[in-house]
Amino acid sequence: MNIKQRPILTLLFIALFFFNANAQNGIVVLQTDFGLKDGAVSAMKGVAMQVDKKLQLFDLTHEIPAFNIWEAAFRLNQVVAYWPKGTVFVSVVDPGVGSERKPIVLQTKSGHYFVGPDNGTFTLVAARLGIKAIREIDEKRHRLPGSDSSYTFHGRDVFAYTAAKLASGKISFTQVGKLLPATVVMMPHQKPVYENGIVKGTITVLDVQYGNVWTNIDAPLLARAGIQLKDTVVVTIYFKGSPVYYGTMPFVHTFSDVAEQQVLGYLNSELKLSIAINMGSFASKHKIESGPDWKIEVGK
Amino acid sequence: MNIKQRPILTLLFIALFFFNANAQNGIVVLQTDFGLKDGAVSAMKGVAMQVDKKLQLFDLTHEIPAFNIWEAAFRLNQVVAYWPKGTVFVSVVDPGVGSERKPIVLQTKSGHYFVGPDNGTFTLVAARLGIKAIREIDEKRHRLPGSDSSYTFHGRDVFAYTAAKLASGKISFTQVGKLLPATVVMMPHQKPVYENGIVKGTITVLDVQYGNVWTNIDAPLLARAGIQLKDTVVVTIYFKGSPVYYGTMPFVHTFSDVAEQQVLGYLNSELKLSIAINMGSFASKHKIESGPDWKIEVGK
Amino acid sequence: MNIKQRPILTLLFIALFFFNANAQNGIVVLQTDFGLKDGAVSAMKGVAMQVDKKLQLFDLTHEIPAFNIWEAAFRLNQVVAYWPKGTVFVSVVDPGVGSERKPIVLQTKSGHYFVGPDNGTFTLVAARLGIKAIREIDEKRHRLPGSDSSYTFHGRDVFAYTAAKLASGKISFTQVGKLLPATVVMMPHQKPVYENGIVKGTITVLDVQYGNVWTNIDAPLLARAGIQLKDTVVVTIYFKGSPVYYGTMPFVHTFSDVAEQQVLGYLNSELKLSIAINMGSFASKHKIESGPDWKIEVGK
Repeated sequence: MNIKQRPILTLLFIALFFFNANAQNGIVVLQTDFGLKDGAVSAMKGVAMQVDKKLQLFDLTHEIPAFNIWEAAFRLNQVVAYWPKGTVFVSVVDPGVGSERKPIVLQTKSGHYFVGPDNGTFTLVAARLGIKAIREIDEKRHRLPGSDSSYTFHGRDVFAYTAAKLASGKISFTQVGKLLPATVVMMPHQKPVYENGIVKGTITVLDVQYGNVWTNIDAPLLARAGIQLKDTVVVTIYFKGSPVYYGTMPFVHTFSDVAEQQVLGYLNSELKLSIAINMGSFASKHKIESGPDWKIEVGK
Repeated sequence: MNIKQRPILTLLFIALFFFNANAQNGIVVLQTDFGLKDGAVSAMKGVAMQVDKKLQLFDLTHEIPAFNIWEAAFRLNQVVAYWPKGTVFVSVVDPGVGSERKPIVLQTKSGHYFVGPDNGTFTLVAARLGIKAIREIDEKRHRLPGSDSSYTFHGRDVFAYTAAKLASGKISFTQVGKLLPATVVMMPHQKPVYENGIVKGTITVLDVQYGNVWTNIDAPLLARAGIQLKDTVVVTIYFKGSPVYYGTMPFVHTFSDVAEQQVLGYLNSELKLSIAINMGSFASKHKIESGPDWKIEVGK
Repeated sequence: MNIKQRPILTLLFIALFFFNANAQNGIVVLQTDFGLKDGAVSAMKGVAMQVDKKLQLFDLTHEIPAFNIWEAAFRLNQVVAYWPKGTVFVSVVDPGVGSERKPIVLQTKSGHYFVGPDNGTFTLVAARLGIKAIREIDEKRHRLPGSDSSYTFHGRDVFAYTAAKLASGKISFTQVGKLLPATVVMMPHQKPVYENGIVKGTITVLDVQYGNVWTNIDAPLLARAGIQLKDTVVVTIYFKGSPVYYGTMPFVHTFSDVAEQQVLGYLNSELKLSIAINMGSFASKHKIESGPDWKIEVGK
């Protein structure tokens, strides 16, 4: 190698050093319940671009139903595994804005970061991925300059701003603020279990575009109840403890295994039990919703 | 030129070589019927970012009506000419997921790539741009690692993953999989024709935001029927062969050529005949929809 | 410093020169009333990518109600301060397309650029940020090649195309077209004033996701009327001069200061007076909309 190539090599080494020194990868994924009809999400992105134009900004969804912390928790958990390590997620579903919930950054053992209010939003990613460390955002240092008047739009002035600084490597995770105990606010819900011949779980979310009903019950748990592909299963759905649906259906591989308008159980793209009507909406027909109040039991 | 500049020149030549060797341009455009309320589209983008962080990801639309393959076909055809050669489109409207339709990549003579299920989605781009080659995605090689359990979310695990590998140049088109015959599944529909003094065509799509009705009839075809600007035209719309609208209207340059709430015919942004009500919704008022079942006839 | 590093230094100087010579920063932010169900926005982005693949494209919103120029004006004003100087905004809400409104680029004193039809869209940013210069887009030079047939989709063929050329530095602001007088078309509306013990203003917009009602009245103006936090205020809302709501409510810091379902006045994220129902929709309950026809009066 010729000595004349040294300047380029030096640049490459510097680049590699900075890349390794910051686990963050320059990607920010935003989730809110703001919708896309006004300028709130765009203002958050503008703030991030002010911090560093090289950031790559993406959306998870901004159509979380207003104030629905559970669904925010579910959506984070749904996508996190598909984003590279080092990605910074911002989730702002914050009915308690202005009250005492803490603004935090959660670092999971998987190497992802989650920025937002500690109000239950991080229930599912913390449980599944494991908490490596949690820091409270120091709003004195990490608040958009000029935004400290009587009121603050936290999603923009604190959460998007801090996430952008973190994702770009302008601050390290340590510089976010003081270390907190390694626990987040958790939302109680029926965890998937097998008891007395019955599998129990929660209706975690609706596949809103098609009206399918998703649960937190996976295939190994069904197997413990002796349920296999092509079996007929008995399904009961409860709302706040009262049964609202009772029926039998085949547990099959995919929609095309049953006739149109027939009900089916299947494993969805997350490999969890889901209930659907082929070319129809199970949720609409039976008025099923989702969240901690909605439980499901499945047996043979 | 000074010999000391050679390292930079070398880099430039290498860059140019790779740029030319891969027609793909690093741009991926996504279309689905998933909507934006859940995490499905975000998961697809995360997968693409895992493949290569330098990719540029864009949306066509994710609001294709559920299972509406025709509209997916139309939207691809609507935008493709505005994206640079080498752009990779992913379209996932896939009612037959889990059945026998083939996962393909279509390379058109225009230099664009289309990734998705071969179920009619590529009807219009194949016909207009011409098929250069089609390859079947080899799911054994091009499936997101870890996604090969009992069920696969093809949009994410196969189509987005393969598109990202192709767009980034990590694989060549040849490496997608085996060559298929150069034909795609086509959806039958009324092609624009002039017969016996009448122009016939299909209502291809609604301009949903405004309620305008778009057709596949262009100006030269109207000219063959002797129809010119400012002429009054007679329009009949058929659903499955039965007339559902009959009326006369002026064929004008633009909306402001008629009074508010008046019906008009005009050439839309694709230079195709469209029917509208100025400051109103023709589609809502007359309950018109679109697709192969909806035909239109125009005469003087 | 070693003489061998000169080539790199030269490149850096060239890069810096071009960076400084063009205030534009490579960022384009798009706003329309097209919605996201069809391919119109995607076609605009494709055109921008044809101009320069290095551009960064973002959305403000595409859900401006059809033809609602006022709301377009409001949204631009809402977000502009959060985007870096040099950002190019494209706003296409254009009921008069094909008529005589001028296609312009507005350069504000803040260093932002606004591209679109001069039909009132720039009312609020021009008033707040100040007009540095306005140029009429020379459609002969700045129209997507091949789009000059009988009709043009201005949002795509003129506005997105010109914005991309400007944002990428491929043209300077001077090259947009001829200089116009430094005034834009203004939409008349009630400016915030204090008169005879009453504060008057406009309902500028609804916070559509939650149903909150936003005004253009700020805290200093309330202070002139002697209104302080925790005071009870009297609010009247007028539509075209007729009262449609009359009520009293506390003026508080944030939602959690009142019980659920209680009405409140507060300063929103723009530090403007807003009226809301805690965990409810004030706008739906009282059928309030927004724009120049909607005025509000506040007193003690």
